[in-house]
Amino acid sequence: MSEVHFDRIALIGIGLIGSSLARVIREKKLAGTVVVASRSSETLERAHALGLGDSYTTSNAEAVRDADLVIVSVPVGMSEKVAREIGSHLKPGAIVTDVGSTKKSVFEQMQPHLPDTVHFIPGHPIAGTEQSGPDAGFARLFEGRWCILTPPADTDEEAIARLTAFWLACGSMVDRMDADHHDRILAIVSHLPHIIAYNIVGTADDLETVTESEVIKYSASGFRDFTRLAASDPTMWRDVCLHNKDAILEMLARFSEDLSSLQRAIRWGDGDKLFDLFSHTRHIRKSILDAGQDVDVPDFGRHGAVLDAGENKSDPS
Amino acid sequence: MSEVHFDRIALIGIGLIGSSLARVIREKKLAGTVVVASRSSETLERAHALGLGDSYTTSNAEAVRDADLVIVSVPVGMSEKVAREIGSHLKPGAIVTDVGSTKKSVFEQMQPHLPDTVHFIPGHPIAGTEQSGPDAGFARLFEGRWCILTPPADTDEEAIARLTAFWLACGSMVDRMDADHHDRILAIVSHLPHIIAYNIVGTADDLETVTESEVIKYSASGFRDFTRLAASDPTMWRDVCLHNKDAILEMLARFSEDLSSLQRAIRWGDGDKLFDLFSHTRHIRKSILDAGQDVDVPDFGRHGAVLDAGENKSDPS
Repeated sequence: MSEVHFDRIALIGIGLIGSSLARVIREKKLAGTVVVASRSSETLERAHALGLGDSYTTSNAEAVRDADLVIVSVPVGMSEKVAREIGSHLKPGAIVTDVGSTKKSVFEQMQPHLPDTVHFIPGHPIAGTEQSGPDAGFARLFEGRWCILTPPADTDEEAIARLTAFWLACGSMVDRMDADHHDRILAIVSHLPHIIAYNIVGTADDLETVTESEVIKYSASGFRDFTRLAASDPTMWRDVCLHNKDAILEMLARFSEDLSSLQRAIRWGDGDKLFDLFSHTRHIRKSILDAGQDVDVPDFGRHGAVLDAGENKSDPS
Repeated sequence: MSEVHFDRIALIGIGLIGSSLARVIREKKLAGTVVVASRSSETLERAHALGLGDSYTTSNAEAVRDADLVIVSVPVGMSEKVAREIGSHLKPGAIVTDVGSTKKSVFEQMQPHLPDTVHFIPGHPIAGTEQSGPDAGFARLFEGRWCILTPPADTDEEAIARLTAFWLACGSMVDRMDADHHDRILAIVSHLPHIIAYNIVGTADDLETVTESEVIKYSASGFRDFTRLAASDPTMWRDVCLHNKDAILEMLARFSEDLSSLQRAIRWGDGDKLFDLFSHTRHIRKSILDAGQDVDVPDFGRHGAVLDAGENKSDPS
């Protein structure tokens, strides 16, 4: 696994994803040289202090010079600006990719500014935490997670194979699909959950009859699960909402329709209907556990994390 | 802490909560004798095999004979039936409590069937996991979690003090409030999150354009957080919806109103409004972490649980 995949990798943006890539690239020796770029000199200094690259610059144009692989890890609303800056400085034959959560918009923003001499392959590693910034990254973030590539139909297959091999070396599994389908999947598995989480936390915070301190004290009864997603980076999520609007609005409409039906069942005391829905959803969690996409311990293993794991658990049943 | 609090405790229902109580009572020696009752002889056999009590019966009337403390841990819709069965068999001076997630309904269901000679103090430990049944319990379930008691105004203070001491001995912190306020708090911190989680999992499962296997593969991007709550016991949650209807419908109405407003901001591209909401909710998570009501590690510490904790984390920053 410690083969050099690229002579020179440019990381544009060094937040949670960018800095995790920097760490795994270093750890697995996937590049000869890593150039780190951030528009914020403060972030760049932090990246330097963490030793995330071999050189550092606030100029994206400067960063991509002679790079074989350019990975853009910025909020999706910044994609066009970055493409404008780097377009004329890219090395012919370079692979340009990104890690944004929406793919159709990123393609439309970047493609017009990139020369025909480079291979532009939009990508999205389905990995992350609720934290952000260069300190939040870690090398194993991508391990066991999927990375989706959405190359347009005419993309060079060898370039796709090289980028696929890179992600596999990072620990990911790799899928390929068209951008529209990606955006629809992510709208339901990621964007809607985050929007719902932000919304319920906002609703709770606005109540007059229940205080914030009560919400916090009793949050272990369900609410706290939502607060993790609602602690995610606001800039990133604003941009996701603005750049995957159609698919998100479609999923929101379906969610609201289903919720109205559930609300009606509660109002009219339709216990059978409630029981059916509440039984029906259990198998999905089981499938997620079977697929290795979540931990197979109750309560996300929090008791193990908060208390000393198991030491006082009287029945390890 | 290993003082005997009650000579004889009757546990009516031996699921996640009942069996966790059985374990902590045994571990901390909080009772002389523990009688376990379940209407299911299969569950009772399992409780016996796990050694959860000193005697076992399918008769609730039999179970409460001579008990100083009776703890009813059944789905809230069963409360009236249990009260009818035990009412005339209770020992004068006994304390009767429950662990149900709705308090006004439980009081109304049980109170008419209980004699004036006992102390009825409804209660609700804010603790649980998505698992159910006697195997799912563990002694530390209540540790660091709140237990809310909702005694009516004329309740004997000494009885309240004894029950409070019992919950403290179980590792809980204890609060006291009226049943209406409890039901409103729980509607927002627990009932609404569960309903929303069941709903979104149902919506995802019904899509025609995104397959179930895609939802599962890419669930790490947010969706899986909801599936934990949506794997909870369907009977319990049906009953909660039916027995805290007014408060739940009130919270659902507010949630939907807020969601419509958020949806409108997405449709019209109001980035500032989205950013404001998404920033605003972050502090709530911080407060929950500060209050010790969730684990202070990204992603609920799943990376530590799935992979070998930290061993390969290149930068422990």
